[in-house]
Amino acid sequence: MQEIERLRSEFLKYLEQESFRNEPHNLYEPNNYFLQIGGKRLRPVLLLLTTELFGGDVNEALPASLAVEYFHNFTLIHDDVMDNAPLRRNFETIHKKYNLNTAILSGDVLFVKACEYLGKVNQKYFKTVYDVYIKTAIEVCEGQQYDVDFETQSTVTHADYTEMIRLKTSVLLAASMQIGAILGGAEHKDAEAIYHYAENLGIAFQIQDDILDVYGDEKLVGKQPGGDILQNKKTLLMIEALKRSQSAGDTNLENILAQKGLDNNEKINQVKMIFDQYDIKVYGLSIRDCYIEQSLSALAQIDLSTAKKEVLLQLVNLLVKRDF
Amino acid sequence: MQEIERLRSEFLKYLEQESFRNEPHNLYEPNNYFLQIGGKRLRPVLLLLTTELFGGDVNEALPASLAVEYFHNFTLIHDDVMDNAPLRRNFETIHKKYNLNTAILSGDVLFVKACEYLGKVNQKYFKTVYDVYIKTAIEVCEGQQYDVDFETQSTVTHADYTEMIRLKTSVLLAASMQIGAILGGAEHKDAEAIYHYAENLGIAFQIQDDILDVYGDEKLVGKQPGGDILQNKKTLLMIEALKRSQSAGDTNLENILAQKGLDNNEKINQVKMIFDQYDIKVYGLSIRDCYIEQSLSALAQIDLSTAKKEVLLQLVNLLVKRDF
Repeated sequence: MQEIERLRSEFLKYLEQESFRNEPHNLYEPNNYFLQIGGKRLRPVLLLLTTELFGGDVNEALPASLAVEYFHNFTLIHDDVMDNAPLRRNFETIHKKYNLNTAILSGDVLFVKACEYLGKVNQKYFKTVYDVYIKTAIEVCEGQQYDVDFETQSTVTHADYTEMIRLKTSVLLAASMQIGAILGGAEHKDAEAIYHYAENLGIAFQIQDDILDVYGDEKLVGKQPGGDILQNKKTLLMIEALKRSQSAGDTNLENILAQKGLDNNEKINQVKMIFDQYDIKVYGLSIRDCYIEQSLSALAQIDLSTAKKEVLLQLVNLLVKRDF
Repeated sequence: MQEIERLRSEFLKYLEQESFRNEPHNLYEPNNYFLQIGGKRLRPVLLLLTTELFGGDVNEALPASLAVEYFHNFTLIHDDVMDNAPLRRNFETIHKKYNLNTAILSGDVLFVKACEYLGKVNQKYFKTVYDVYIKTAIEVCEGQQYDVDFETQSTVTHADYTEMIRLKTSVLLAASMQIGAILGGAEHKDAEAIYHYAENLGIAFQIQDDILDVYGDEKLVGKQPGGDILQNKKTLLMIEALKRSQSAGDTNLENILAQKGLDNNEKINQVKMIFDQYDIKVYGLSIRDCYIEQSLSALAQIDLSTAKKEVLLQLVNLLVKRDF
């Protein structure tokens, strides 16, 4: 999408311009490193896009877009520690490249810097934007905690899982677009509707990600499939497969998950066979589509021209209708 | 001081009333634990005191006072990880009692909650208070980084050290009183002056703490003296003692610091003898008094009645004129 590309390059210019140059070096340089290793910059770009769609000035929304990107990266830096992840996007994570203390403290200051940039938004909108941002930041922490909790929790329901991904990944996307709308001068009801549009789109995106992890084409997805299966991750697909097999009195799936020392490919293939047996891919796609429907129904309520709504429709296709 | 006691009990009531009751339990319960292990609650109490001195309503300042206490505790939780400290005020630190991930994430959400409570202040003052708070939060992170850096840095000057303690401990005290003044309706110049009063008082307090660590009476101070010496900590006293002994071509102090396996009491006694030789206690007290003078000179510029200034004078005596 042309709009996305244009706004991404505007954002990247601003990110570069605002890169940390101050002391202490050991506090700020790791953040420059982490911020330049990339990513799609989805949240800031969608914030700017929404401001533009509602007729606002993209330049005025740049500080807020940087705030959401900083916040997102702060959560990634700390999440990488918690997940003990050595790499992010093929680059060393901060705690690996530097050390644990740097990951904690540089992450902390990045969050404070996010707050500082948020404070640069038009005074007229500041408190409204601030309330959205803080509510969201709390939810993101809660989502991360649920994710940690689920690892050791014996039962995770469909509702538990959806709420976790909503909090962990979807609300920040939604808040970014809501903030963009507020800064664009949108009516309260439209800013709320765009939040629900993005919130449901984000959940659909995450569910699709889970499906791609099992069924995706390695060349298109860019990573080896089956990672979630190997980790026994309780995704929506796994939760449903366990439920359906248990209802049928079938303990095959549970046995495979409990088995130690099984060959990786063997495990992935066996789990996929059971998923196929219980129509899990179809189930996953239907749940994903249900969130897309909710996203589109929120979109329908927004007071924007057809041409502008078309952009938001294209965005849905861009994010969740990938072939696989 | 009667005012301090009354406001502390008001604050503690509010802290208890607002204690976390929400889910996820594993995210919030560690913060309740950490917040109830105590401390003097100096920052929130001084915030409330300042609001009261400027004729404001203490009840309206309670959310901001909780914000600074939450922020302070967030920094303690993360600092304890960085220092690998097993205990704080004789209670287990969060990373010890729970685990590293809990210390990181519960700390993070406590900072967000601090921001949330800050958002509850009177809308009229919010942006002014917010700017003070964010500037301070950045400085506190920078101070912690300098403290970490100094451990491996060969030369630390008097100016480096003073700037580090100013950032790490003094600015939050100062910001708390400035925020209290703003919420009490103080003039801009008075809110600035109270900041400088507390900033200098905080530095004096920290320097005195360093002196007490060497010369304090164990019964009055509540901890064994000599901890800083055993850690080779580059306090103002050590910096000056090294400077004076080096000027005199005397390598005794350097040799003692470089020596491994020296008995603890032996090391403390030898360092103290060198300190005495170079009049380091007198030097430390004179630097401390210099900051007290600056604090009092800021106080003199504040437009408050003599009776109210008397409270702030008593506070100086309470914090930095302890006998030892």
